[in-house]
Amino acid sequence: MRKLSLIGIGAGNPEHITVQAIRALNAVDVFFIMDKGDTKQTLLHIRREICERYIEGKNYRIVQVEDAFRDPDVADYAARVELWHEQRSMTYERIILDELKEDQVGAFLVWGDPSLYDSTLRILDRVLARGALQFDIEMIPGITSMQALAAQHHIALNGIGESVLITTGRKLSSTAMRNMDAAIVMLDGKCAFQQLRDQDWEIFWGAYIGMDQEILLSGKLSDMADEIESVRSEARRKNHWIMDTYLLRRSNSSS
Amino acid sequence: MRKLSLIGIGAGNPEHITVQAIRALNAVDVFFIMDKGDTKQTLLHIRREICERYIEGKNYRIVQVEDAFRDPDVADYAARVELWHEQRSMTYERIILDELKEDQVGAFLVWGDPSLYDSTLRILDRVLARGALQFDIEMIPGITSMQALAAQHHIALNGIGESVLITTGRKLSSTAMRNMDAAIVMLDGKCAFQQLRDQDWEIFWGAYIGMDQEILLSGKLSDMADEIESVRSEARRKNHWIMDTYLLRRSNSSS
Repeated sequence: MRKLSLIGIGAGNPEHITVQAIRALNAVDVFFIMDKGDTKQTLLHIRREICERYIEGKNYRIVQVEDAFRDPDVADYAARVELWHEQRSMTYERIILDELKEDQVGAFLVWGDPSLYDSTLRILDRVLARGALQFDIEMIPGITSMQALAAQHHIALNGIGESVLITTGRKLSSTAMRNMDAAIVMLDGKCAFQQLRDQDWEIFWGAYIGMDQEILLSGKLSDMADEIESVRSEARRKNHWIMDTYLLRRSNSSS
Repeated sequence: MRKLSLIGIGAGNPEHITVQAIRALNAVDVFFIMDKGDTKQTLLHIRREICERYIEGKNYRIVQVEDAFRDPDVADYAARVELWHEQRSMTYERIILDELKEDQVGAFLVWGDPSLYDSTLRILDRVLARGALQFDIEMIPGITSMQALAAQHHIALNGIGESVLITTGRKLSSTAMRNMDAAIVMLDGKCAFQQLRDQDWEIFWGAYIGMDQEILLSGKLSDMADEIESVRSEARRKNHWIMDTYLLRRSNSSS
């Protein structure tokens, strides 16, 4: 039976990798790496570096897979994701059949953790559901950018005994935050924090966390919103890509 | 200058430890380990095991610290925690002064991740705020039980593009969940999920995740609530302690 490992590789620092992940890496015959175009060359490079650094005396192959096209003409978010997942699952089915022998182990190196805002598991579940192909799945947890963010800022993500919302830029709004003490925001390409700048929040922002280019900014949201937006846009221009995340918490909350 | 490392050691599986954490462990002179009484002997044992397994050729000491008394007569939760943090911070101040030389590195091994539902950082910040003692703080992220839970159940924590609430048993309620698609619940000693059993939720529960005694249960909450409560209480009786966590997600949500 084929096996597919979803290995969380952490949030940028190659030393975020766990002993469990290193053990899993060393059992892999074929790494499947999505090619998302020029802007993600750095992320591709980090994945190759992790293989080179942590795999000892095992032959492995890296298969680059061209990502499915996300059709921007499909206006509805859910429909667009649905279409893209379906296309990707067909691509995965084909490459697994073509590149992985029946007794081999394939792997996907997942940024952060495979359970948070990553589609690999869902797409593999779709391949299984179609029934043309059978395989075992193994998931290896990884450090997420929210944990790395907290570590670099020396902060707790939750107030004492309080809740914290994990959300996305697309979902962030005054309504969503009405009864919240804190939120960790991922995938915010549009600086959605600007919507909350008139309220009493603190922001702890980080980009390229754990990497050489790391940038950390924090302070009252009303003071920092414009600065973060401009630093973000400048860094994105310079590096051709950006990965960032932030924590919002009420200014009056227990720290 | 003294340095104190807060090292996340993961959620039970000793292989959750990261390369970054191993590097940090090997720089430590003194480990401070809280002694929480008989029921936590296993957790103490795992911490010692991690030191023995991952520290090579470095002399270190382990200092066991008696935990401050949480006075159950203080009825208000916030006041009780406040008092306990204050007492603990005085204990920490004393043991750091007594046990750690000016140029040494001390460490606290934190279950899961030091930024989520752990008080060590706050207590050290309190020691610093009192001003009798100066030190640098370093935080090393660790795998949390929520990530380990998702990995063992082979599930994503969030629906596609959706939010997920991280909360505690004490905070879980129908009101808190009214507009939520999913919640990760930690620190629930009282099976607070029972309050939601008449609604349409799925539950993914795990105890001793990543350890030999691991138990995983999942299904419709209405079907599983009583079984989980009884399995939990039996396991707690047998092992003298339990650490568990669960994900609730709406039955109709994207998986």
